[in-house]
Amino acid sequence: MSNKVKIINDPVYGFLRFPEPEVVAVINHRWLQRLRNIRQMGMAHLVYPGAMHTRLHHSIGACHLMGKALDELRLKSIPIDKEEYTAARLAALLHDIGHGPFSHSLEYVLVNVPHEVISKLLIEKMDAEMGGMLTPALQIFEREYPKPFLHQLVSSQLDIDRMDYLNRDSFFTGVSEGVIGYDRILNMLTVNNNQLVVEEKGLQSVEKFIIARRLMYWQVYLHKTVIGAERLLINIITRAKELINDGISVFATPSFNYFLTKNLSPDDFINNPEHLEAYCNMDDTDILASIKEWQKHSDSVLSTLSKMLFLRKLYKIFFVKEDVEALLLEKTMELQHKYGVEPRLLKYYAFSGVAKNNTYNIENEMIKIEMKNGAVKNITELEDTLVNQTVARSVQKNYICYTQF
Amino acid sequence: MSNKVKIINDPVYGFLRFPEPEVVAVINHRWLQRLRNIRQMGMAHLVYPGAMHTRLHHSIGACHLMGKALDELRLKSIPIDKEEYTAARLAALLHDIGHGPFSHSLEYVLVNVPHEVISKLLIEKMDAEMGGMLTPALQIFEREYPKPFLHQLVSSQLDIDRMDYLNRDSFFTGVSEGVIGYDRILNMLTVNNNQLVVEEKGLQSVEKFIIARRLMYWQVYLHKTVIGAERLLINIITRAKELINDGISVFATPSFNYFLTKNLSPDDFINNPEHLEAYCNMDDTDILASIKEWQKHSDSVLSTLSKMLFLRKLYKIFFVKEDVEALLLEKTMELQHKYGVEPRLLKYYAFSGVAKNNTYNIENEMIKIEMKNGAVKNITELEDTLVNQTVARSVQKNYICYTQF
Amino acid sequence: MSNKVKIINDPVYGFLRFPEPEVVAVINHRWLQRLRNIRQMGMAHLVYPGAMHTRLHHSIGACHLMGKALDELRLKSIPIDKEEYTAARLAALLHDIGHGPFSHSLEYVLVNVPHEVISKLLIEKMDAEMGGMLTPALQIFEREYPKPFLHQLVSSQLDIDRMDYLNRDSFFTGVSEGVIGYDRILNMLTVNNNQLVVEEKGLQSVEKFIIARRLMYWQVYLHKTVIGAERLLINIITRAKELINDGISVFATPSFNYFLTKNLSPDDFINNPEHLEAYCNMDDTDILASIKEWQKHSDSVLSTLSKMLFLRKLYKIFFVKEDVEALLLEKTMELQHKYGVEPRLLKYYAFSGVAKNNTYNIENEMIKIEMKNGAVKNITELEDTLVNQTVARSVQKNYICYTQF
Amino acid sequence: MSNKVKIINDPVYGFLRFPEPEVVAVINHRWLQRLRNIRQMGMAHLVYPGAMHTRLHHSIGACHLMGKALDELRLKSIPIDKEEYTAARLAALLHDIGHGPFSHSLEYVLVNVPHEVISKLLIEKMDAEMGGMLTPALQIFEREYPKPFLHQLVSSQLDIDRMDYLNRDSFFTGVSEGVIGYDRILNMLTVNNNQLVVEEKGLQSVEKFIIARRLMYWQVYLHKTVIGAERLLINIITRAKELINDGISVFATPSFNYFLTKNLSPDDFINNPEHLEAYCNMDDTDILASIKEWQKHSDSVLSTLSKMLFLRKLYKIFFVKEDVEALLLEKTMELQHKYGVEPRLLKYYAFSGVAKNNTYNIENEMIKIEMKNGAVKNITELEDTLVNQTVARSVQKNYICYTQF
Repeated sequence: MSNKVKIINDPVYGFLRFPEPEVVAVINHRWLQRLRNIRQMGMAHLVYPGAMHTRLHHSIGACHLMGKALDELRLKSIPIDKEEYTAARLAALLHDIGHGPFSHSLEYVLVNVPHEVISKLLIEKMDAEMGGMLTPALQIFEREYPKPFLHQLVSSQLDIDRMDYLNRDSFFTGVSEGVIGYDRILNMLTVNNNQLVVEEKGLQSVEKFIIARRLMYWQVYLHKTVIGAERLLINIITRAKELINDGISVFATPSFNYFLTKNLSPDDFINNPEHLEAYCNMDDTDILASIKEWQKHSDSVLSTLSKMLFLRKLYKIFFVKEDVEALLLEKTMELQHKYGVEPRLLKYYAFSGVAKNNTYNIENEMIKIEMKNGAVKNITELEDTLVNQTVARSVQKNYICYTQF
Repeated sequence: MSNKVKIINDPVYGFLRFPEPEVVAVINHRWLQRLRNIRQMGMAHLVYPGAMHTRLHHSIGACHLMGKALDELRLKSIPIDKEEYTAARLAALLHDIGHGPFSHSLEYVLVNVPHEVISKLLIEKMDAEMGGMLTPALQIFEREYPKPFLHQLVSSQLDIDRMDYLNRDSFFTGVSEGVIGYDRILNMLTVNNNQLVVEEKGLQSVEKFIIARRLMYWQVYLHKTVIGAERLLINIITRAKELINDGISVFATPSFNYFLTKNLSPDDFINNPEHLEAYCNMDDTDILASIKEWQKHSDSVLSTLSKMLFLRKLYKIFFVKEDVEALLLEKTMELQHKYGVEPRLLKYYAFSGVAKNNTYNIENEMIKIEMKNGAVKNITELEDTLVNQTVARSVQKNYICYTQF
Repeated sequence: MSNKVKIINDPVYGFLRFPEPEVVAVINHRWLQRLRNIRQMGMAHLVYPGAMHTRLHHSIGACHLMGKALDELRLKSIPIDKEEYTAARLAALLHDIGHGPFSHSLEYVLVNVPHEVISKLLIEKMDAEMGGMLTPALQIFEREYPKPFLHQLVSSQLDIDRMDYLNRDSFFTGVSEGVIGYDRILNMLTVNNNQLVVEEKGLQSVEKFIIARRLMYWQVYLHKTVIGAERLLINIITRAKELINDGISVFATPSFNYFLTKNLSPDDFINNPEHLEAYCNMDDTDILASIKEWQKHSDSVLSTLSKMLFLRKLYKIFFVKEDVEALLLEKTMELQHKYGVEPRLLKYYAFSGVAKNNTYNIENEMIKIEMKNGAVKNITELEDTLVNQTVARSVQKNYICYTQF
Repeated sequence: MSNKVKIINDPVYGFLRFPEPEVVAVINHRWLQRLRNIRQMGMAHLVYPGAMHTRLHHSIGACHLMGKALDELRLKSIPIDKEEYTAARLAALLHDIGHGPFSHSLEYVLVNVPHEVISKLLIEKMDAEMGGMLTPALQIFEREYPKPFLHQLVSSQLDIDRMDYLNRDSFFTGVSEGVIGYDRILNMLTVNNNQLVVEEKGLQSVEKFIIARRLMYWQVYLHKTVIGAERLLINIITRAKELINDGISVFATPSFNYFLTKNLSPDDFINNPEHLEAYCNMDDTDILASIKEWQKHSDSVLSTLSKMLFLRKLYKIFFVKEDVEALLLEKTMELQHKYGVEPRLLKYYAFSGVAKNNTYNIENEMIKIEMKNGAVKNITELEDTLVNQTVARSVQKNYICYTQF
């Protein structure tokens, strides 16, 4: 482990300093380095061409913000010792270690295991490899560390994960709507009874944070073209798997092929470490390089869909308020009769779906406000806040998607 | 061709508007879309993790800046008709169409043809495909259009290409040293006797531009870690080709394999359009997905170098003022005696090279200044400018690179 | 009138271009230049030290944004001829011409006339001076021009005034919460039946705009220290007037003295142009330079309050939910008994007030949304928007203010 | 002294934290608060309307940067104890305390004493007032503290003063040419033999810093309109003094009048503390509010010049290479014969001058570079740097200024 302060130039926050050798060792680990080839925002670059940044970059940013948050808490005399400081930074750095190619877009498509499960398995293995160096970080990650506020900084409704991705995604997309005053929010954090809370005077910044997140969902993450592109990607891989199941040969890079030809469960992952290592060999480049070849595949569904992706002739997609099925039927009929699409293949060319965003999920770790009189309340209990029924209510929109031939 | 104004969100300049259907058609062309998978800055993201932006994004930015430059010239009553406006924007959009994977890093390694030659061939083919729509753009690109200043905006010492990449690369790396006041520079441009010139009062902004470029070279483009990573990439591919020549099987995606197994000359490209199409099938993902597999290849050179890349254990590299060969010999001996490297393989583990930057290349299209009295001078002829011998002189630095086992 | 394109460097938007000689003539007019010495944000710099920008700067920015808005509408084929374009830009440039020292803070304190009345009188007089050049601008300003959307761009719930001041005040205070995606909003504007409307897909940006404005109110404009400083300023001037009425001599610069010794009504202004000219002679520097001297005045109220301002020992201020009067009484008693303040002077040292913000004033020109089906609705009529009862409802907070001796 | 961390929102650097009660006490001192009414950039806002920021804001920024610099040095194991840390921050905060109205523009015009002398007197007096709390800061300021690098951080060719003003002035003017990578420069600082030095790898950032400063000089600080406005301001005050000497009554605010009617030497200041207190009562508002009244003065020189300032009808100014005197004579003749200006008043309407910038003043504390081999060299001794003769050479430009009637 190096003894030098590692410095990383981040266009979002400026010079980042990593003085802890443990943090540097984890940044250099092959499993973190693999995140260099996994884009943070999946297909969003098809709408926002700047959005090419990676999970590695986000992980580094989250680690940095964790340090800033802890510095603030220490200024408020919250005791956090050196080991806890490093452990919390490591937990932030590792929080997304289990993501696979195209992050959320392909979760459950390539392997039927939630990325959190894989994260835990990977951190455990790294911890063993590193002689227990990551044990406290793992405890924080798993909510087992005695100071719950450390876990809440890593994962809650107002965690450094969200602060980093909102800022970072705004920066790289150019959608200024997502910019949050993270410095102000960090400044308003404190700890009450071992829980992470926000001082009352920070209420408006928290509201702004929730609104910014809501806006980023509808303008970026759930932008209809992005949804369409993700559905296209999923359909392409589903079709490839179907063909392989039918015994038809489909080229894929070896790392991708491993998972195209298997259907692994969480138990498989837990029981066979080989799968875990194979999983870490796969990244965005395998998927893209393989699909690119599929443009010339003899199966017309696979080649058509693959060309749609590479030529950016994406699905048409509409949000519809009612009569989703009627509209879908209409499109399906048109495809069948006008273009002669076989009924069993229609599902690849026209389908419906639901886009959904819980801006403030009331079941999850709630944002807690420390009132001036010392009482702690859930943000939704306060009067006159924007985070009332409207915002807290999950919004979902039905859509139909279809190919234009 | 669509009739709607296409809008692209660029984090560098904000909302970009593309009202010309010709420009939109070219943006949507498969050959421009392929630039989406070719990073602008090759291996620079190994030092600056934000530098994941693509040639596509840069091309779109150059097209936008061309529009801004032409708007300024029109405000100064330089006649530029609608066709010329569109043609110049197209020329800017297409100026990098011929780049292959990893842009400059792999030029002459994958195919022995300069990217400008390929650009020209591609634009000609697109022009034919599009019924001559690109002919004026091609003339501007090739310096054949009657108004030389249009070509100079596309390609000269002070072109929109450089303005865009300095700004964009600064933005994505976070190296504020490269930020240029492009708005001010554009405002100082004018045309004198059909040549692009800068008004005298803009002299300092031009100097700043030249200095910014010089600094970006040494801090980013020729950063020693970046040079080392590029040399590593080249050595990996060179080794793979060597193995293939020796009849040893090396996995590669089909698109990459095409070029690994051939040595094509410019004439081959001109005579056989199939090569051109194949060239356009290859992008960064092919190279990365293939090299990733090579980490497990039985050839120890190939696997060692490939692992170095993926684990970011790059070459050690030092700039040296003198006695390059003595130092190299010392390292070579150490590798040979201490680690038992075979003499014929030493070239992969220790070697020297020259990093070189002509900040202001005096042989090229020079920057011309229009003095207050109307006379036009080359910037190097002026007194009291920074762009004197020091800057104009090509700086080159010798380095040695070696593997640390 | 000059024939050259005037260029102004604005740190908020970059290079601003003013090609219309009419606009340049108005920028250079003595009455617009006087805004150079009137700060945009009154006393806010006592909390946000960067907030020293002026009404002149804001007026120039509003004029610039008007041009951008009109450019967008023209791209959407809304007919706007050259005269209208210039007139609307002039109306934007002139919209704040009637502001006096410390803008809103001292409105009705120095003269008992709303700034809008003064604006109208000033524009009429300038128009006469300039041979009718400003007549169409005045019509737009006064809502008398046949195309109502031009007035709505100058003054409505979503006007270029608000867009500019939110952006500009965010920039100079460093409160990123107020940053709005003005480029996106402008892009969503269109005209329906001669009314300014927002396309449905721009709904979220409009919501964000309303939220940003709400946050800026509570974090900046109605920041309690700012309210306290404004009340202090008002009390100082009120006391000075009181002393003058009692025949006690109080130094003031001649321009300020004119209004300290008179109580003018709107009718006085309309009937006597001398008052108008005198009004335009007074700016922030008169007030500050005079109050500074008052620190040494023999009246202890005047000197105490003046010192409080210059030493930044401002009133203590608390927002209180209930029992305002009880709390005030308590403080009053303390001041009276502990510090021996005379009862008739207590009003200068302890008092209550109401801070109030109508984020979205439902009585005013409402924001109208053009639905995808062509229908136009008020934003408050839409479901699932944040601009529901909560936001639209006027929020007001009671406070008490008192001096700490 | 408060015990709470003071936080200031700075649009340039974000949230600034001031945990030291000593620093907060000095920020709140009346003599620092007076800098709130002294603009940092004198008349530059006549060209760059955003440049309204104050000496107070700059002083706070310098204090912040000092903390960042010391943090970096501590990371490099340079011992700096808590007292030294605070003392160096105080020295930075106080470095401009002695500036009078319009900063450099009116130095030697209002009082014939350099601002450094006044600074020292003020700090000494504050130190006495504060029970010796500022003694170490004063030693650092006066180069008497045992660790010279602390003084060099306050005042040298690469001090936090310059870093702050370049960044801040760029921010508020919008001239991106002055932006410096201060984070990178701070990161390259170290201490060698108790001297502040820059690591060799930071050489290019230092060069960029020197160039940025040079460009800011010519584009902003010595912009010809700014020079003209400053000369106008000086002439106005000179004329007012002349009239007063001749027994003619001229209105001025009492604070300004004190100095208009006296000619004080450094010794007067040292011997009579009343002058010092009077000096601290005067700020920009006195000058502006007084000159505004002079527009109506019976002396035509005073009223003409004052109107020129307020109507922004500034002097015409030209940089001339040779024959300055011939050109000046020509203009003088024209004024005399065509407009009948009396010979003894011509000096107010036409004159010459010299604008001068030593970008890198080789006599001053030089920037020292620590080579990789440990040797320390002056930056000018290095080969291949831009800071060669050209840059180091003082550039000066002759100009003539005249009134256009």
